[in-house]
Amino acid sequence: MDRHIPPAGRWQLAARAQRMTPSSLRELLKVAERPDIISFAGGLPSPYALPVERLSAAVGQILQHDATGALQYGPSEGYTPLREAIAARLSRSGATVSPAQVLVTTGSQQALDLVARVLIDPGSRVLIETPTYLGAVQALAQYEPVFEEAPSDAGGLIPECLDEALMRDARLLYVQPNFQNPTGRTLPLDRRIALVSRAKRHGLLLVEDDPYGELVYSGVTPASLLSMAPDDVVHIGSFSKVIAPGLRVGYLVAPEELMIKLLQAKQASDLHTTGITQRIAHALLTDGQYDAHLEAVRLRYRAQCALMLKCLAEHMPDGVAWTRPAGGMFLWVTLPPAIDSAALFEDALACGVAFIPGASFHAITPKANTMRLTFTTATPIQIETGVARLAQAIKARLRKAAPCLAVS
Amino acid sequence: MDRHIPPAGRWQLAARAQRMTPSSLRELLKVAERPDIISFAGGLPSPYALPVERLSAAVGQILQHDATGALQYGPSEGYTPLREAIAARLSRSGATVSPAQVLVTTGSQQALDLVARVLIDPGSRVLIETPTYLGAVQALAQYEPVFEEAPSDAGGLIPECLDEALMRDARLLYVQPNFQNPTGRTLPLDRRIALVSRAKRHGLLLVEDDPYGELVYSGVTPASLLSMAPDDVVHIGSFSKVIAPGLRVGYLVAPEELMIKLLQAKQASDLHTTGITQRIAHALLTDGQYDAHLEAVRLRYRAQCALMLKCLAEHMPDGVAWTRPAGGMFLWVTLPPAIDSAALFEDALACGVAFIPGASFHAITPKANTMRLTFTTATPIQIETGVARLAQAIKARLRKAAPCLAVS
Repeated sequence: MDRHIPPAGRWQLAARAQRMTPSSLRELLKVAERPDIISFAGGLPSPYALPVERLSAAVGQILQHDATGALQYGPSEGYTPLREAIAARLSRSGATVSPAQVLVTTGSQQALDLVARVLIDPGSRVLIETPTYLGAVQALAQYEPVFEEAPSDAGGLIPECLDEALMRDARLLYVQPNFQNPTGRTLPLDRRIALVSRAKRHGLLLVEDDPYGELVYSGVTPASLLSMAPDDVVHIGSFSKVIAPGLRVGYLVAPEELMIKLLQAKQASDLHTTGITQRIAHALLTDGQYDAHLEAVRLRYRAQCALMLKCLAEHMPDGVAWTRPAGGMFLWVTLPPAIDSAALFEDALACGVAFIPGASFHAITPKANTMRLTFTTATPIQIETGVARLAQAIKARLRKAAPCLAVS
Repeated sequence: MDRHIPPAGRWQLAARAQRMTPSSLRELLKVAERPDIISFAGGLPSPYALPVERLSAAVGQILQHDATGALQYGPSEGYTPLREAIAARLSRSGATVSPAQVLVTTGSQQALDLVARVLIDPGSRVLIETPTYLGAVQALAQYEPVFEEAPSDAGGLIPECLDEALMRDARLLYVQPNFQNPTGRTLPLDRRIALVSRAKRHGLLLVEDDPYGELVYSGVTPASLLSMAPDDVVHIGSFSKVIAPGLRVGYLVAPEELMIKLLQAKQASDLHTTGITQRIAHALLTDGQYDAHLEAVRLRYRAQCALMLKCLAEHMPDGVAWTRPAGGMFLWVTLPPAIDSAALFEDALACGVAFIPGASFHAITPKANTMRLTFTTATPIQIETGVARLAQAIKARLRKAAPCLAVS
């Protein structure tokens, strides 16, 4: 790896900075915010799902009774009662987690940054699903790894394909087992068992990113990797989807050997996460209404997902396929091979609807005929109108791409 | 530089993580928090200086009128009105800053992290003052530079000592010109002019960290490096000292070429800074009471600084010297050469008082006979009692170190 790239500008930048490229996705998301556009693009929670009243009450209480605690410097590990509440909640769902294993982070994005900082040298091998979460790729890429795609299908990672050659010397495998971003797919229990078994045998660290696990539409998610192999997993969670992303409160759970280093990296990064928002997260997690709020969010998203699936079935032409998520915020559409979704994006925009082209979610081998749709942000009427517009754009492009289809 | 250190534990850590060492300072600060200890150790604002009422009013308004804005995902650059307010305030004090040059960060610690990420490769040369701010060394050290000390005296950096050999290939020079942490010293105007002139001539990037500049006790601080050389300076600021550290809101101002990269690094680090706290900082900066609040904080700290100086003069034995800051939160004590302040720390603790041993603030050549005292956190009575106790510990150690002194 050449670490001596000549400076392009006035300042000699770090090699990692020279490799940073402007995010085309950022520009695309800005366009999708135009008021005339129905956006299935950004991964935002529904504005109707934000618990504004409880949050206002909580912040009032915090500033009345614990203002100095909330406003002074705090411990880098995080606010102790929040760490305890997170450990208790994770323990309820089958993992055995002590508060000492919990590090509060500035959103789960920072958890990814810290994990990468502690584990990745330039040139380190890092395994990812395909497709995978773009934000994770961006965080990990800052530490200049070599990404390798672990073979995946509609059920997610295929553990049998993780052979000795792929796993050897890999610093970590990054996986979202529940309602994955961008596909909405869930890793089945038997694959989780097989994955953990292989990882343990080969000393592969599993980074389990679970921002959507609580948004399960019915029943429960399969057991977490953390619950199966607490010594082999860094587990990452977030309050962005169930409370509010603007709080920037997430967390990670790690084995002690890694926690010591992650804590030092956290301290060097931003000293600690905001005191007020940590206390807000704690209040909302422990005020007795969290589960009822969660259930309301689940019902809302389940209905919106069902509506989008119904509209897709109604409007989409033959040759278009999509996933049927059991939770979360996203579904994944596969178009006929002739359609490049980046080109389709422009057509769709002209029709007043936006999505994210699937190429954005592939670190290595882009599949151009795919796209991610978010069903949480739009209203039901917008979902109906937006899917119809999208189908119209696809049909028009199919006619252009293969005019004979227009005859049939 | 050997990048292939064998793994000490189960996981192959990144080289940077293998070099991380547990912070002895953290342990020391925990001890200093004991209720029986008068602490001059931590760099905390006075709890009486936190604007709790205005802050409560602001957060109520924000959640009533802009809850969705505050709680959803926001732009990585920061909340636009806050960026505008920061640019306007900096422009009032002589710099010409546009909002597009302002990046809001999760405390100024994150600004240091981002600057280091974008500019430092393993082995890059980085110039620092001596002594210098420990948190900056910790942030920069994550990116594995080679630190070099720029000669400094009671006036701070000595520009004439920045020779060709020292500056060549250095990625940046890190400096706190105003009321430096830990010494409280201020870089005089003539040195600023000379520093900027040399830096420009040799293409050296200046990182100007200014968390204390607004805490000037009378008059104004000398012109900022930013105002003299906006194309050659990354300027870092913070709301931690004048509003509240727990908000974790800071910012940086950078030339466009660097801003593009810093923004991408910010996005990968934590997506954006908390929406609520950015809006709180904006409200408190623009509600018309900021300058009155600032003046009250200045008066409080000026009085506490003067009191500590008076107590030092009253109690300290011959051979002990200290700085006389014109602003900020800290002063710096130089002990007789025979006294190691790390050993003195234990004695002082036994007497019920804590400080930070000066060795913590030297990246390369520690001066063991120095210490930092914070005068902002303790009450006036605690300052009087604490300085007397500290003098007692020093006198006792002087007797032990040189028993003949006890006879005189």
